[in-house]
Amino acid sequence: ITVPSSIKTSNTDNKKKVFAVCKSYRERSESCQHSLSKKLYSIMETKSTNLALSVDLTKSNDILQIVDTVGPFVCIVKTHVDIVEDFSQSFVNHLSDLAKKHNFILFEDRKFADIGNTVNCQYNNGIFKISSWADIVNVHPVPGEGVIAGIKQTGLSLGRGCLLVAEMSSKGNLATGDYTKAAVKMAENHKDFVIGFICQSRLTDDPNFIHMTPGVKLSSGDDALGQQYSTPEDAVINKGADVIIVGRGIIQATDPVSTAKQYQQAGYNAYLQTLK
Amino acid sequence: ITVPSSIKTSNTDNKKKVFAVCKSYRERSESCQHSLSKKLYSIMETKSTNLALSVDLTKSNDILQIVDTVGPFVCIVKTHVDIVEDFSQSFVNHLSDLAKKHNFILFEDRKFADIGNTVNCQYNNGIFKISSWADIVNVHPVPGEGVIAGIKQTGLSLGRGCLLVAEMSSKGNLATGDYTKAAVKMAENHKDFVIGFICQSRLTDDPNFIHMTPGVKLSSGDDALGQQYSTPEDAVINKGADVIIVGRGIIQATDPVSTAKQYQQAGYNAYLQTLK
Repeated sequence: ITVPSSIKTSNTDNKKKVFAVCKSYRERSESCQHSLSKKLYSIMETKSTNLALSVDLTKSNDILQIVDTVGPFVCIVKTHVDIVEDFSQSFVNHLSDLAKKHNFILFEDRKFADIGNTVNCQYNNGIFKISSWADIVNVHPVPGEGVIAGIKQTGLSLGRGCLLVAEMSSKGNLATGDYTKAAVKMAENHKDFVIGFICQSRLTDDPNFIHMTPGVKLSSGDDALGQQYSTPEDAVINKGADVIIVGRGIIQATDPVSTAKQYQQAGYNAYLQTLK
Repeated sequence: ITVPSSIKTSNTDNKKKVFAVCKSYRERSESCQHSLSKKLYSIMETKSTNLALSVDLTKSNDILQIVDTVGPFVCIVKTHVDIVEDFSQSFVNHLSDLAKKHNFILFEDRKFADIGNTVNCQYNNGIFKISSWADIVNVHPVPGEGVIAGIKQTGLSLGRGCLLVAEMSSKGNLATGDYTKAAVKMAENHKDFVIGFICQSRLTDDPNFIHMTPGVKLSSGDDALGQQYSTPEDAVINKGADVIIVGRGIIQATDPVSTAKQYQQAGYNAYLQTLK
Protein backbone atom coordinates (compact mmCIF):
# COMPACT_ATOMS: atom_id res chain seq x y z
CA ILE A 1 0.00 0.00 0.00
CA THR A 2 1.51 3.31 -1.05
CA VAL A 3 0.48 6.35 0.92
CA PRO A 4 1.12 9.57 -1.00
CA SER A 5 4.06 11.25 0.74
CA SER A 6 2.07 14.48 0.96
CA ILE A 7 -0.29 12.97 3.51
CA LYS A 8 2.30 10.95 5.41
CA THR A 9 3.56 14.05 7.17
CA SER A 10 3.09 14.39 10.90
CA ASN A 11 2.99 18.17 10.63
CA THR A 12 -0.51 19.27 11.57
CA ASP A 13 -0.58 22.32 9.32
CA ASN A 14 0.41 20.28 6.30
CA LYS A 15 -2.18 17.70 7.15
CA LYS A 16 -4.85 20.38 7.29
CA LYS A 17 -3.80 21.62 3.89
CA VAL A 18 -3.99 18.16 2.39
CA PHE A 19 -7.26 17.24 4.02
CA ALA A 20 -9.21 20.28 2.95
CA VAL A 21 -12.32 18.40 4.07
CA CYS A 22 -11.02 18.07 7.64
CA LYS A 23 -14.06 19.78 9.00
CA SER A 24 -16.44 18.61 11.68
CA TYR A 25 -19.02 16.01 10.73
CA ARG A 26 -21.62 18.75 11.03
CA GLU A 27 -19.79 20.89 8.47
CA ARG A 28 -19.26 17.91 6.18
CA SER A 29 -22.94 17.12 6.39
CA GLU A 30 -23.67 20.63 5.15
CA SER A 31 -21.13 20.57 2.33
CA CYS A 32 -22.18 17.27 0.71
CA GLN A 33 -25.21 16.88 -1.58
CA HIS A 34 -26.57 13.33 -1.25
CA SER A 35 -29.24 12.87 1.44
CA LEU A 36 -27.63 9.62 2.52
CA SER A 37 -24.24 11.29 3.04
CA LYS A 38 -25.94 14.01 5.07
CA LYS A 39 -27.67 11.38 7.16
CA LEU A 40 -24.43 9.44 7.69
CA TYR A 41 -22.47 12.50 8.87
CA SER A 42 -25.35 13.46 11.11
CA ILE A 43 -25.26 10.00 12.69
CA MET A 44 -21.48 10.25 13.10
CA GLU A 45 -21.90 13.62 14.83
CA THR A 46 -24.76 12.55 17.06
CA LYS A 47 -23.27 9.22 18.12
CA SER A 48 -19.61 10.36 18.15
CA THR A 49 -18.52 7.47 15.97
CA ASN A 50 -16.82 6.83 12.64
CA LEU A 51 -16.88 3.07 13.14
CA ALA A 52 -18.49 0.69 10.65
CA LEU A 53 -19.01 -2.87 11.86
CA SER A 54 -18.43 -5.58 9.28
CA VAL A 55 -20.56 -8.41 10.59
CA ASP A 56 -19.27 -11.43 8.68
CA LEU A 57 -21.16 -14.15 10.54
CA THR A 58 -23.09 -16.99 8.94
CA LYS A 59 -26.15 -17.33 11.20
CA SER A 60 -28.81 -14.64 11.18
CA ASN A 61 -29.42 -14.83 14.94
CA ASP A 62 -25.71 -14.35 15.66
CA ILE A 63 -25.69 -11.33 13.36
CA LEU A 64 -28.80 -9.77 14.87
CA GLN A 65 -27.52 -10.38 18.39
CA ILE A 66 -24.14 -8.72 17.86
CA VAL A 67 -25.69 -5.86 15.86
CA ASP A 68 -28.16 -5.19 18.67
CA THR A 69 -25.37 -4.99 21.25
CA VAL A 70 -22.77 -3.15 19.15
CA GLY A 71 -25.30 -0.98 17.28
CA PRO A 72 -25.09 1.97 19.74
CA PHE A 73 -21.38 2.44 18.91
CA VAL A 74 -21.39 2.35 15.10
CA CYS A 75 -22.54 4.55 12.23
CA ILE A 76 -22.74 1.72 9.67
CA VAL A 77 -23.36 -2.02 9.75
CA LYS A 78 -21.83 -3.79 6.77
CA THR A 79 -23.14 -7.18 5.69
CA HIS A 80 -22.29 -10.02 3.32
CA VAL A 81 -25.75 -11.52 3.03
CA ASP A 82 -24.56 -14.26 0.70
CA ILE A 83 -22.69 -15.95 3.56
CA VAL A 84 -25.79 -16.11 5.79
CA GLU A 85 -26.95 -19.74 5.98
CA ASP A 86 -30.53 -18.97 7.00
CA PHE A 87 -31.10 -15.72 5.13
CA SER A 88 -34.75 -14.70 5.03
CA GLN A 89 -36.89 -11.62 4.50
CA SER A 90 -37.54 -11.68 8.23
CA PHE A 91 -33.79 -11.39 8.90
CA VAL A 92 -33.61 -8.28 6.73
CA ASN A 93 -36.67 -6.82 8.44
CA HIS A 94 -35.05 -7.35 11.84
CA LEU A 95 -31.83 -5.80 10.62
CA SER A 96 -33.71 -2.76 9.32
CA ASP A 97 -35.50 -2.47 12.67
CA LEU A 98 -32.13 -2.47 14.44
CA ALA A 99 -30.86 0.21 12.03
CA LYS A 100 -33.78 2.41 13.13
CA LYS A 101 -33.43 1.51 16.80
CA HIS A 102 -29.70 2.27 16.98
CA ASN A 103 -29.55 4.87 14.20
CA PHE A 104 -27.06 3.40 11.76
CA ILE A 105 -26.88 2.87 8.00
CA LEU A 106 -27.02 -0.52 6.27
CA PHE A 107 -24.23 -1.29 3.82
CA GLU A 108 -24.29 -4.53 1.80
CA ASP A 109 -20.70 -5.23 0.79
CA ARG A 110 -21.66 -6.97 -2.47
CA LYS A 111 -18.79 -5.58 -4.55
CA PHE A 112 -20.87 -5.70 -7.75
CA ALA A 113 -18.45 -6.33 -10.61
CA ASP A 114 -20.35 -7.35 -13.73
CA ILE A 115 -21.82 -5.62 -16.77
CA GLY A 116 -24.68 -3.16 -16.16
CA ASN A 117 -27.52 -5.44 -17.16
CA THR A 118 -26.32 -8.23 -14.85
CA VAL A 119 -25.65 -6.07 -11.78
CA ASN A 120 -29.09 -4.50 -12.17
CA CYS A 121 -30.59 -8.01 -11.91
CA GLN A 122 -28.31 -8.90 -8.99
CA TYR A 123 -29.23 -5.70 -7.14
CA ASN A 124 -33.00 -6.05 -7.50
CA ASN A 125 -33.77 -9.72 -7.88
CA GLY A 126 -33.06 -13.09 -6.38
CA ILE A 127 -33.46 -14.15 -2.80
CA PHE A 128 -31.71 -11.06 -1.41
CA LYS A 129 -33.51 -8.17 -3.16
CA ILE A 130 -30.61 -5.97 -2.01
CA SER A 131 -32.06 -2.73 -3.40
CA SER A 132 -35.08 -3.07 -1.13
CA TRP A 133 -33.14 -2.79 2.15
CA ALA A 134 -29.46 -1.79 1.73
CA ASP A 135 -28.88 1.97 2.00
CA ILE A 136 -25.43 1.58 0.47
CA VAL A 137 -23.80 -1.01 -1.78
CA ASN A 138 -20.35 -0.99 -3.31
CA VAL A 139 -19.17 -1.70 -6.84
CA HIS A 140 -15.81 -2.45 -8.39
CA PRO A 141 -15.02 -0.01 -11.19
CA VAL A 142 -13.40 -2.72 -13.34
CA PRO A 143 -16.43 -3.28 -15.65
CA GLY A 144 -16.50 0.44 -16.58
CA GLU A 145 -19.27 2.96 -15.85
CA GLY A 146 -21.99 0.48 -16.84
CA VAL A 147 -21.64 -1.14 -13.41
CA ILE A 148 -22.65 2.16 -11.78
CA ALA A 149 -25.38 2.83 -14.34
CA GLY A 150 -26.83 -0.64 -13.75
CA ILE A 151 -27.19 -0.08 -10.00
CA LYS A 152 -28.21 3.56 -10.33
CA GLN A 153 -31.05 2.66 -12.71
CA THR A 154 -32.96 1.37 -9.68
CA GLY A 155 -31.09 2.85 -6.73
CA LEU A 156 -31.35 6.53 -7.57
CA SER A 157 -35.12 6.77 -7.20
CA LEU A 158 -34.96 4.73 -3.98
CA GLY A 159 -32.56 7.26 -2.44
CA ARG A 160 -29.77 4.68 -2.25
CA GLY A 161 -26.08 5.39 -2.59
CA CYS A 162 -23.06 3.54 -3.87
CA LEU A 163 -19.35 3.37 -3.04
CA LEU A 164 -16.62 2.61 -5.54
CA VAL A 165 -13.88 0.19 -4.52
CA ALA A 166 -11.00 2.44 -5.58
CA GLU A 167 -8.29 0.75 -3.50
CA MET A 168 -8.08 -2.51 -1.59
CA SER A 169 -6.33 -3.65 1.57
CA SER A 170 -5.25 -7.06 0.30
CA LYS A 171 -1.71 -8.00 -0.71
CA GLY A 172 -0.80 -7.61 -4.38
CA ASN A 173 -4.15 -6.06 -5.31
CA LEU A 174 -4.50 -4.32 -8.67
CA ALA A 175 -6.59 -1.33 -7.52
CA THR A 176 -3.69 1.11 -7.79
CA GLY A 177 -2.38 3.91 -9.99
CA ASP A 178 -4.41 4.52 -13.14
CA TYR A 179 -7.08 2.07 -11.96
CA THR A 180 -7.70 4.19 -8.85
CA LYS A 181 -7.65 7.40 -10.90
CA ALA A 182 -10.23 5.95 -13.27
CA ALA A 183 -12.41 5.08 -10.27
CA VAL A 184 -12.30 8.68 -9.03
CA LYS A 185 -13.20 9.91 -12.52
CA MET A 186 -16.18 7.52 -12.66
CA ALA A 187 -17.34 8.75 -9.26
CA GLU A 188 -17.17 12.36 -10.44
CA ASN A 189 -19.31 11.42 -13.44
CA HIS A 190 -21.98 9.96 -11.13
CA LYS A 191 -22.06 12.36 -8.17
CA ASP A 192 -25.82 11.97 -7.87
CA PHE A 193 -25.36 8.34 -6.85
CA VAL A 194 -21.75 7.62 -5.88
CA ILE A 195 -21.28 8.87 -2.33
CA GLY A 196 -17.70 7.80 -1.78
CA PHE A 197 -14.93 5.26 -1.94
CA ILE A 198 -13.63 2.12 -0.35
CA CYS A 199 -9.98 3.10 -0.22
CA GLN A 200 -6.68 3.14 1.62
CA SER A 201 -5.80 6.82 1.13
CA ARG A 202 -7.45 10.22 0.63
CA LEU A 203 -8.42 10.32 -3.06
CA THR A 204 -10.14 13.68 -3.44
CA ASP A 205 -11.08 16.75 -1.43
CA ASP A 206 -14.54 16.92 -3.03
CA PRO A 207 -16.78 16.98 0.07
CA ASN A 208 -19.34 14.82 -1.73
CA PHE A 209 -17.15 11.74 -1.38
CA ILE A 210 -16.84 9.82 1.88
CA HIS A 211 -13.67 7.76 2.30
CA MET A 212 -14.15 4.39 4.02
CA THR A 213 -11.18 2.21 4.89
CA PRO A 214 -11.49 -1.53 5.57
CA GLY A 215 -8.81 -3.78 7.00
CA VAL A 216 -8.62 -1.91 10.32
CA LYS A 217 -7.50 -3.56 13.58
CA LEU A 218 -6.17 -2.19 16.86
CA SER A 219 -2.86 -3.85 16.05
CA SER A 220 -1.63 -3.94 12.44
CA GLY A 221 -0.56 -7.17 10.68
CA ASP A 222 -2.08 -9.59 8.18
CA ASP A 223 -4.11 -12.80 7.89
CA ALA A 224 -3.24 -16.06 6.12
CA LEU A 225 -5.07 -15.06 2.89
CA GLY A 226 -3.42 -11.73 2.11
CA GLN A 227 -5.47 -9.26 4.18
CA GLN A 228 -3.30 -6.41 5.54
CA TYR A 229 -4.41 -4.41 8.58
CA SER A 230 -4.02 -0.75 9.57
CA THR A 231 -4.69 0.75 12.99
CA PRO A 232 -7.58 3.24 13.45
CA GLU A 233 -5.08 6.11 13.95
CA ASP A 234 -3.16 5.21 10.80
CA ALA A 235 -6.38 4.92 8.77
CA VAL A 236 -7.90 8.22 9.95
CA ILE A 237 -4.85 10.43 10.52
CA ASN A 238 -2.37 9.20 7.93
CA LYS A 239 -4.65 7.78 5.25
CA GLY A 240 -7.53 10.25 5.56
CA ALA A 241 -10.36 7.80 6.25
CA ASP A 242 -13.73 9.28 7.22
CA VAL A 243 -15.04 5.88 8.28
CA ILE A 244 -13.07 2.88 9.54
CA ILE A 245 -14.44 -0.57 8.80
CA VAL A 246 -13.70 -3.23 11.41
CA GLY A 247 -14.73 -6.87 11.12
CA ARG A 248 -12.84 -9.68 12.76
CA GLY A 249 -11.22 -7.25 15.24
CA ILE A 250 -14.65 -6.94 16.89
CA ILE A 251 -16.68 -10.02 16.03
CA GLN A 252 -13.91 -12.43 17.00
CA ALA A 253 -13.14 -10.57 20.25
CA THR A 254 -13.93 -12.22 23.57
CA ASP A 255 -16.03 -9.19 24.46
CA PRO A 256 -17.28 -7.61 21.23
CA VAL A 257 -19.12 -4.76 22.97
CA SER A 258 -16.21 -3.42 24.97
CA THR A 259 -13.92 -3.97 21.97
CA ALA A 260 -16.31 -2.03 19.73
CA LYS A 261 -16.22 0.80 22.26
CA GLN A 262 -12.41 0.76 22.07
CA TYR A 263 -12.54 1.04 18.27
CA GLN A 264 -15.19 3.75 18.47
CA GLN A 265 -12.99 5.75 20.85
CA ALA A 266 -9.78 5.17 18.87
CA GLY A 267 -11.45 6.16 15.59
CA TYR A 268 -13.25 9.18 17.03
CA ASN A 269 -10.16 10.45 18.87
CA ALA A 270 -8.20 10.17 15.63
CA TYR A 271 -10.92 12.24 13.92
CA LEU A 272 -10.72 14.87 16.68
CA GLN A 273 -6.96 15.06 16.10
CA THR A 274 -7.49 15.88 12.43
CA LEU A 275 -9.64 18.86 13.48
CA LYS A 276 -6.90 20.38 15.64
CA ILE B 1 -11.71 -3.68 -27.40
CA THR B 2 -8.23 -3.87 -28.90
CA VAL B 3 -7.34 -7.00 -30.79
CA PRO B 4 -3.57 -7.45 -31.08
CA SER B 5 -2.73 -6.90 -34.76
CA SER B 6 -0.84 -10.19 -34.78
CA ILE B 7 -4.05 -12.16 -34.48
CA LYS B 8 -6.18 -9.98 -36.70
CA THR B 9 -4.57 -11.38 -39.80
CA SER B 10 -6.66 -13.42 -42.20
CA ASN B 11 -3.63 -15.41 -43.30
CA THR B 12 -4.15 -18.97 -42.12
CA ASP B 13 -0.48 -19.76 -41.61
CA ASN B 14 0.03 -16.70 -39.44
CA LYS B 15 -3.05 -17.56 -37.46
CA LYS B 16 -1.70 -21.04 -36.82
CA LYS B 17 1.57 -19.60 -35.63
CA VAL B 18 -0.15 -17.26 -33.19
CA PHE B 19 -2.61 -19.85 -31.91
CA ALA B 20 -0.09 -22.51 -31.10
CA VAL B 21 -2.90 -24.26 -29.24
CA CYS B 22 -5.07 -24.47 -32.36
CA LYS B 23 -5.31 -28.18 -32.09
CA SER B 24 -8.37 -30.37 -32.03
CA TYR B 25 -10.31 -30.56 -28.79
CA ARG B 26 -9.02 -34.11 -28.42
CA GLU B 27 -5.43 -32.90 -28.61
CA ARG B 28 -6.13 -30.04 -26.23
CA SER B 29 -7.70 -32.47 -23.80
CA GLU B 30 -4.44 -34.44 -23.84
CA SER B 31 -2.18 -31.40 -23.44
CA CYS B 32 -3.91 -29.82 -20.42
CA GLN B 33 -3.47 -31.00 -16.83
CA HIS B 34 -6.64 -30.27 -14.86
CA SER B 35 -9.24 -33.05 -14.89
CA LEU B 36 -12.01 -30.49 -15.40
CA SER B 37 -10.30 -29.05 -18.48
CA LYS B 38 -9.88 -32.55 -19.87
CA LYS B 39 -13.55 -33.23 -19.24
CA LEU B 40 -14.61 -29.97 -20.87
CA TYR B 41 -12.60 -30.58 -24.06
CA SER B 42 -13.90 -34.11 -24.17
CA ILE B 43 -17.48 -32.79 -24.01
CA MET B 44 -16.69 -30.23 -26.72
CA GLU B 45 -15.30 -33.02 -28.94
CA THR B 46 -18.14 -35.44 -28.29
CA LYS B 47 -20.95 -32.93 -28.68
CA SER B 48 -19.29 -30.80 -31.39
CA THR B 49 -19.88 -27.60 -29.47
CA ASN B 50 -17.92 -24.72 -27.98
CA LEU B 51 -21.09 -22.93 -26.87
CA ALA B 52 -21.70 -21.91 -23.25
CA LEU B 53 -25.24 -20.85 -22.41
CA SER B 54 -25.55 -17.97 -19.97
CA VAL B 55 -28.98 -18.56 -18.47
CA ASP B 56 -29.80 -15.25 -16.80
CA LEU B 57 -33.42 -15.90 -15.89
CA THR B 58 -34.99 -15.22 -12.52
CA LYS B 59 -37.35 -18.21 -12.05
CA SER B 60 -35.90 -21.65 -11.43
CA ASN B 61 -38.51 -23.44 -13.56
CA ASP B 62 -37.75 -21.17 -16.53
CA ILE B 63 -34.05 -21.91 -16.11
CA LEU B 64 -34.51 -25.67 -15.81
CA GLN B 65 -36.85 -25.71 -18.81
CA ILE B 66 -34.50 -23.85 -21.15
CA VAL B 67 -31.47 -25.80 -19.91
CA ASP B 68 -33.25 -29.08 -20.57
CA THR B 69 -34.06 -28.08 -24.15
CA VAL B 70 -30.81 -26.30 -25.00
CA GLY B 71 -28.58 -28.68 -22.98
CA PRO B 72 -27.81 -31.02 -25.92
CA PHE B 73 -26.12 -28.17 -27.81
CA VAL B 74 -23.85 -26.68 -25.15
CA CYS B 75 -20.66 -27.64 -23.30
CA ILE B 76 -21.27 -25.30 -20.35
CA VAL B 77 -24.27 -23.78 -18.59
CA LYS B 78 -23.42 -20.55 -16.82
CA THR B 79 -25.62 -19.29 -13.98
CA HIS B 80 -26.10 -16.22 -11.80
CA VAL B 81 -27.82 -17.93 -8.88
CA ASP B 82 -28.18 -14.68 -6.98
CA ILE B 83 -30.80 -13.45 -9.45
CA VAL B 84 -33.01 -16.53 -9.01
CA GLU B 85 -36.12 -15.53 -7.04
CA ASP B 86 -36.98 -19.03 -5.84
CA PHE B 87 -33.49 -20.49 -5.43
CA SER B 88 -33.49 -23.77 -3.49
CA GLN B 89 -31.32 -26.82 -2.98
CA SER B 90 -33.83 -28.70 -5.13
CA PHE B 91 -33.18 -26.28 -8.01
CA VAL B 92 -29.45 -27.00 -7.81
CA ASN B 93 -30.10 -30.73 -7.65
CA HIS B 94 -32.23 -30.53 -10.78
CA LEU B 95 -29.59 -28.46 -12.53
CA SER B 96 -26.91 -31.02 -11.62
CA ASP B 97 -29.15 -33.80 -12.93
CA LEU B 98 -29.49 -31.93 -16.23
CA ALA B 99 -25.70 -31.50 -16.37
CA LYS B 100 -25.36 -35.29 -16.17
CA LYS B 101 -28.25 -35.95 -18.56
CA HIS B 102 -26.94 -33.61 -21.28
CA ASN B 103 -23.22 -33.85 -20.45
CA PHE B 104 -22.27 -30.24 -19.75
CA ILE B 105 -20.31 -28.39 -17.07
CA LEU B 106 -21.82 -26.00 -14.51
CA PHE B 107 -20.26 -22.57 -14.24
CA GLU B 108 -21.47 -20.11 -11.60
CA ASP B 109 -20.56 -16.64 -12.86
CA ARG B 110 -20.06 -15.20 -9.36
CA LYS B 111 -17.09 -13.00 -10.22
CA PHE B 112 -15.68 -13.27 -6.69
CA ALA B 113 -13.85 -10.03 -5.98
CA ASP B 114 -13.11 -9.72 -2.28
CA ILE B 115 -10.27 -10.61 0.07
CA GLY B 116 -9.44 -14.31 0.48
CA ASN B 117 -11.17 -14.85 3.81
CA THR B 118 -14.43 -13.32 2.53
CA VAL B 119 -14.55 -15.15 -0.82
CA ASN B 120 -13.89 -18.41 0.97
CA CYS B 121 -17.03 -17.77 3.06
CA GLN B 122 -19.00 -16.69 -0.03
CA TYR B 123 -17.93 -19.80 -1.95
CA ASN B 124 -18.82 -22.31 0.75
CA ASN B 125 -21.53 -20.79 2.90
CA GLY B 126 -24.83 -19.01 2.70
CA ILE B 127 -27.94 -20.10 0.88
CA PHE B 128 -26.07 -20.97 -2.33
CA LYS B 129 -23.21 -23.22 -1.12
CA ILE B 130 -21.61 -22.66 -4.52
CA SER B 131 -18.65 -24.94 -3.90
CA SER B 132 -21.00 -27.90 -3.46
CA TRP B 133 -22.36 -27.83 -7.02
CA ALA B 134 -20.52 -25.44 -9.39
CA ASP B 135 -17.73 -27.13 -11.35
CA ILE B 136 -16.30 -23.75 -12.30
CA VAL B 137 -16.48 -20.27 -10.77
CA ASN B 138 -14.74 -17.10 -11.86
CA VAL B 139 -12.84 -14.49 -9.89
CA HIS B 140 -11.70 -10.96 -10.60
CA PRO B 141 -7.94 -10.61 -10.09
CA VAL B 142 -8.29 -7.12 -8.58
CA PRO B 143 -7.97 -8.23 -4.90
CA GLY B 144 -4.61 -9.93 -5.64
CA GLU B 145 -3.79 -13.64 -5.38
CA GLY B 146 -5.66 -13.98 -2.08
CA VAL B 147 -8.91 -14.16 -4.03
CA ILE B 148 -7.67 -17.31 -5.79
CA ALA B 149 -6.19 -18.74 -2.59
CA GLY B 150 -9.51 -18.18 -0.80
CA ILE B 151 -11.48 -20.20 -3.37
CA LYS B 152 -8.76 -22.79 -3.89
CA GLN B 153 -8.60 -23.54 -0.15
CA THR B 154 -11.87 -25.43 -0.56
CA GLY B 155 -12.16 -25.95 -4.31
CA LEU B 156 -8.93 -27.79 -4.97
CA SER B 157 -9.83 -30.90 -2.99
CA LEU B 158 -13.31 -30.92 -4.53
CA GLY B 159 -11.82 -31.05 -8.03
CA ARG B 160 -13.26 -27.63 -8.91
CA GLY B 161 -11.68 -25.10 -11.24
CA CYS B 162 -11.61 -21.36 -11.52
CA LEU B 163 -11.41 -18.80 -14.31
CA LEU B 164 -9.83 -15.37 -13.98
CA VAL B 165 -11.66 -12.40 -15.47
CA ALA B 166 -8.65 -11.04 -17.36
CA GLU B 167 -10.60 -8.88 -19.83
CA MET B 168 -14.20 -7.70 -20.04
CA SER B 169 -16.62 -6.97 -22.87
CA SER B 170 -18.16 -3.83 -21.36
CA LYS B 171 -17.45 -0.28 -22.50
CA GLY B 172 -14.69 1.59 -20.67
CA ASN B 173 -13.69 -1.42 -18.56
CA LEU B 174 -10.38 -1.33 -16.68
CA ALA B 175 -9.31 -4.95 -17.32
CA THR B 176 -6.66 -3.97 -19.86
CA GLY B 177 -2.88 -3.65 -20.20
CA ASP B 178 -0.94 -4.33 -17.02
CA TYR B 179 -4.11 -5.46 -15.26
CA THR B 180 -4.58 -8.25 -17.82
CA LYS B 181 -0.89 -9.15 -17.66
CA ALA B 182 -1.10 -9.42 -13.88
CA ALA B 183 -4.09 -11.74 -14.26
CA VAL B 184 -2.12 -14.05 -16.55
CA LYS B 185 0.76 -14.08 -14.07
CA MET B 186 -1.63 -14.97 -11.22
CA ALA B 187 -3.07 -17.80 -13.31
CA GLU B 188 0.42 -19.15 -13.98
CA ASN B 189 1.09 -19.12 -10.23
CA HIS B 190 -2.05 -21.23 -9.61
CA LYS B 191 -2.09 -23.70 -12.52
CA ASP B 192 -3.40 -26.44 -10.25
CA PHE B 193 -6.67 -24.54 -9.85
CA VAL B 194 -7.00 -21.79 -12.48
CA ILE B 195 -8.14 -23.48 -15.71
CA GLY B 196 -8.46 -20.40 -17.88
CA PHE B 197 -9.67 -16.90 -18.51
CA ILE B 198 -12.72 -14.84 -19.22
CA CYS B 199 -11.24 -12.66 -21.94
CA GLN B 200 -11.60 -10.91 -25.26
CA SER B 201 -8.34 -12.03 -26.85
CA ARG B 202 -5.85 -14.89 -26.78
CA LEU B 203 -3.70 -14.29 -23.70
CA THR B 204 -1.31 -17.23 -23.65
CA ASP B 205 -0.48 -20.37 -25.61
CA ASP B 206 -0.12 -22.43 -22.45
CA PRO B 207 -2.48 -25.35 -23.21
CA ASN B 208 -3.59 -25.42 -19.56
CA PHE B 209 -5.63 -22.26 -19.98
CA ILE B 210 -9.02 -22.24 -21.70
CA HIS B 211 -10.12 -18.89 -23.16
CA MET B 212 -13.83 -18.11 -22.76
CA THR B 213 -15.34 -15.04 -24.37
CA PRO B 214 -18.66 -13.52 -23.24
CA GLY B 215 -20.64 -10.84 -25.02
CA VAL B 216 -21.23 -12.96 -28.13
CA LYS B 217 -24.23 -12.46 -30.45
CA LEU B 218 -24.92 -13.45 -34.06
CA SER B 219 -24.92 -9.75 -34.89
CA SER B 220 -22.49 -7.41 -33.14
CA GLY B 221 -23.59 -4.20 -31.37
CA ASP B 222 -24.22 -3.09 -27.79
CA ASP B 223 -26.91 -2.77 -25.11
CA ALA B 224 -28.09 0.32 -23.19
CA LEU B 225 -25.76 -0.38 -20.23
CA GLY B 226 -22.39 -0.64 -21.96
CA GLN B 227 -22.26 -4.30 -23.06
CA GLN B 228 -20.47 -4.70 -26.42
CA TYR B 229 -21.09 -7.78 -28.58
CA SER B 230 -18.84 -9.82 -30.89
CA THR B 231 -20.00 -12.45 -33.41
CA PRO B 232 -19.04 -16.12 -32.89
CA GLU B 233 -16.63 -15.98 -35.85
CA ASP B 234 -14.93 -12.85 -34.54
CA ALA B 235 -14.62 -14.34 -31.04
CA VAL B 236 -13.20 -17.71 -32.16
CA ILE B 237 -11.20 -16.83 -35.28
CA ASN B 238 -9.97 -13.31 -34.57
CA LYS B 239 -9.88 -13.25 -30.78
CA GLY B 240 -8.87 -16.86 -30.15
CA ALA B 241 -11.78 -17.94 -27.93
CA ASP B 242 -12.03 -21.63 -27.09
CA VAL B 243 -15.55 -21.20 -25.71
CA ILE B 244 -18.14 -18.59 -26.67
CA ILE B 245 -20.59 -17.47 -23.99
CA VAL B 246 -24.04 -16.49 -25.24
CA GLY B 247 -26.83 -15.21 -23.03
CA ARG B 248 -29.55 -12.89 -24.27
CA GLY B 249 -28.86 -13.91 -27.88
CA ILE B 250 -30.41 -17.29 -27.03
CA ILE B 251 -32.68 -16.84 -24.02
CA GLN B 252 -34.46 -13.82 -25.48
CA ALA B 253 -34.89 -15.48 -28.88
CA THR B 254 -38.38 -16.45 -30.06
CA ASP B 255 -37.11 -20.00 -30.53
CA PRO B 256 -34.20 -20.55 -28.13
CA VAL B 257 -33.55 -24.13 -29.27
CA SER B 258 -33.12 -23.43 -32.97
CA THR B 259 -31.17 -20.27 -32.10
CA ALA B 260 -28.86 -22.26 -29.81
CA LYS B 261 -28.27 -24.68 -32.70
CA GLN B 262 -27.32 -21.70 -34.89
CA TYR B 263 -24.80 -20.52 -32.30
CA GLN B 264 -23.47 -24.04 -31.85
CA GLN B 265 -22.95 -24.36 -35.58
CA ALA B 266 -21.43 -20.88 -35.97
CA GLY B 267 -19.03 -21.43 -33.06
CA TYR B 268 -18.07 -24.94 -34.10
CA ASN B 269 -17.54 -24.00 -37.75
CA ALA B 270 -15.31 -21.15 -36.62
CA TYR B 271 -13.30 -23.66 -34.55
CA LEU B 272 -12.98 -25.95 -37.58
CA GLN B 273 -11.64 -23.02 -39.59
CA THR B 274 -8.88 -22.46 -37.04
CA LEU B 275 -7.75 -26.08 -37.57
CA LYS B 276 -7.34 -25.66 -41.32
